[in-house]
Amino acid sequence: MKKPIFAITAGDPCGIGPEIVVKALIKNPDLYQLCLPVILGQTELISKTAHLLKLDCTIRTLEHIEEAAGKAGILECMRFDLDTPEPVWGKISASGGRHAFAYIKAAIDLALGKKVQAIVTAPINKEALKLAGVPYLDHTEILTKLTSSKNTMTLFVTGDLRVFFYSRHIRFRDISAALNQHDLVNSMEDCQKYLRQMGIPEPKLALAALNPHGGEQGMFGEEETEILFPAVEQARKKGLNVFGPIPADSVFHLALTGHYDAVLSLYHDQGHIATKTLDFHRTVALTMGLPFLRTSVDHGTAFDIAGKGMASEISLVEAMRCAEKYYW
Amino acid sequence: MKKPIFAITAGDPCGIGPEIVVKALIKNPDLYQLCLPVILGQTELISKTAHLLKLDCTIRTLEHIEEAAGKAGILECMRFDLDTPEPVWGKISASGGRHAFAYIKAAIDLALGKKVQAIVTAPINKEALKLAGVPYLDHTEILTKLTSSKNTMTLFVTGDLRVFFYSRHIRFRDISAALNQHDLVNSMEDCQKYLRQMGIPEPKLALAALNPHGGEQGMFGEEETEILFPAVEQARKKGLNVFGPIPADSVFHLALTGHYDAVLSLYHDQGHIATKTLDFHRTVALTMGLPFLRTSVDHGTAFDIAGKGMASEISLVEAMRCAEKYYW
Repeated sequence: MKKPIFAITAGDPCGIGPEIVVKALIKNPDLYQLCLPVILGQTELISKTAHLLKLDCTIRTLEHIEEAAGKAGILECMRFDLDTPEPVWGKISASGGRHAFAYIKAAIDLALGKKVQAIVTAPINKEALKLAGVPYLDHTEILTKLTSSKNTMTLFVTGDLRVFFYSRHIRFRDISAALNQHDLVNSMEDCQKYLRQMGIPEPKLALAALNPHGGEQGMFGEEETEILFPAVEQARKKGLNVFGPIPADSVFHLALTGHYDAVLSLYHDQGHIATKTLDFHRTVALTMGLPFLRTSVDHGTAFDIAGKGMASEISLVEAMRCAEKYYW
Repeated sequence: MKKPIFAITAGDPCGIGPEIVVKALIKNPDLYQLCLPVILGQTELISKTAHLLKLDCTIRTLEHIEEAAGKAGILECMRFDLDTPEPVWGKISASGGRHAFAYIKAAIDLALGKKVQAIVTAPINKEALKLAGVPYLDHTEILTKLTSSKNTMTLFVTGDLRVFFYSRHIRFRDISAALNQHDLVNSMEDCQKYLRQMGIPEPKLALAALNPHGGEQGMFGEEETEILFPAVEQARKKGLNVFGPIPADSVFHLALTGHYDAVLSLYHDQGHIATKTLDFHRTVALTMGLPFLRTSVDHGTAFDIAGKGMASEISLVEAMRCAEKYYW
């Protein structure tokens, strides 16, 4: 079987992105059995990083992605000619933002052109993007806008646990008011579609409850009886294989033990606590709803340790394994 | 060193209580190296259960706890003369409630008299207590009232993770309004006291945040800046070694990796998701604030599988190990 080609973006070069990319590929030669990784990051930066890390490797610059050979020990970088001051480790800069954006944009072009099967991204910085004059807030906005996607959804994967998010960056106090039957049914429909896209033919989805013990028939809250149960019922009438609402203190355990293929969590911390307490470093973020799969490390640029050789590549390695498992 | 004596209550005899007590003690002889377990449960019931399970053992009835010898393979039960119809497996009954209450009451008397060093409880049923005319709702209320304790607090222990609860059985929508600086400071003070009681001399406590990313300086919610930070500051001024608020998606990981001795979670699911996703069956509930330690299984009476030999004793075994680790 032909191995998939993945675009690995180096992220903001002022952060730990280049370091974790180099470490991931050099220290984990088995990744080359899963995929053909092409780095979207300037050769000079990757070379400087490998030198800093004293990691023995060869670095090639590719003019065209078709030149990629995918041999362990040889880092292959797409050519970038960026007329910017050299990015400085640990400093938020317009230069860093311009590199970061150029890498993602190139990755998106390759993915839209079906030259790569997935994008795996190292972290970027919102401030740097702003300084560089990039008119988008973050990865998700760049990916959504540049692919003309309508809506995207975040999926966290930690080992066998898959968790979607109904809401994310909203105030805790606004979570209950953000629940409505119509949007929940749409979300469950999207989750089912995404799971099938990821290669799970008959996905079983569980909807998490909001209140303790799922409200115990209204004793501790009405959202289950008034919104969540009716939403699940409506979704089932549409033929969706969904269950719940299931009390949040058991739904993740049930998914982990094979009762469900994924959980739709209602708010940021509900899903984050489950995945990140289970395995903080091996939690991978997937963006679903794009024309291709994008997986991502689940941490920031860590400017404070950039250029010091201290960053862990675990999360990026997991993001690459996850891309191989679920790309389409 | 003298081994501690633990009162193991058999719970509601119509549920799985007697079964898990017998299984725990017969199948885990190493428990006898940690403690001297005395069963608070009628000899006839324990005997009937051992017979059902076809577990080879001797059963002794004790008139006085001082007679306990604590030898693996010999189940020692305190004498109970209860004039009730024989409890029937799987049926909620007044008889079951009377047994359950008698066992707990006897355990409390022994603990208050310093005859046992901790109480480990099997599950009981609220309906059965009510049918039996017991004027208390559940374990916690019985324990609090019969020991004249002022306030008690639940602590979940899952391996090395310890999680206290600021609030529990309230509606999700009421969680934010239940936060106030005064009560939070008192809770943090209590947590510190309890941790020291459990043998942790200089406990480091983390307060979990409420909003995603801890609110990001008010961008996603104000509870952190208005209530949680001031509460931690006030607690620190009182000399308490407390930290936070720490975003809930990293605080449990940080506690697990040794940065904190315990986490004060703000609501039921926040702490429950963390502990139960980490290890559903090995989560033990501790009741703190009593004159003695009480540990408990973290599941119900499971009437549907009572008398069938299917119940898992893992949680009760963990509750006994946990009692040995933290009794005072």
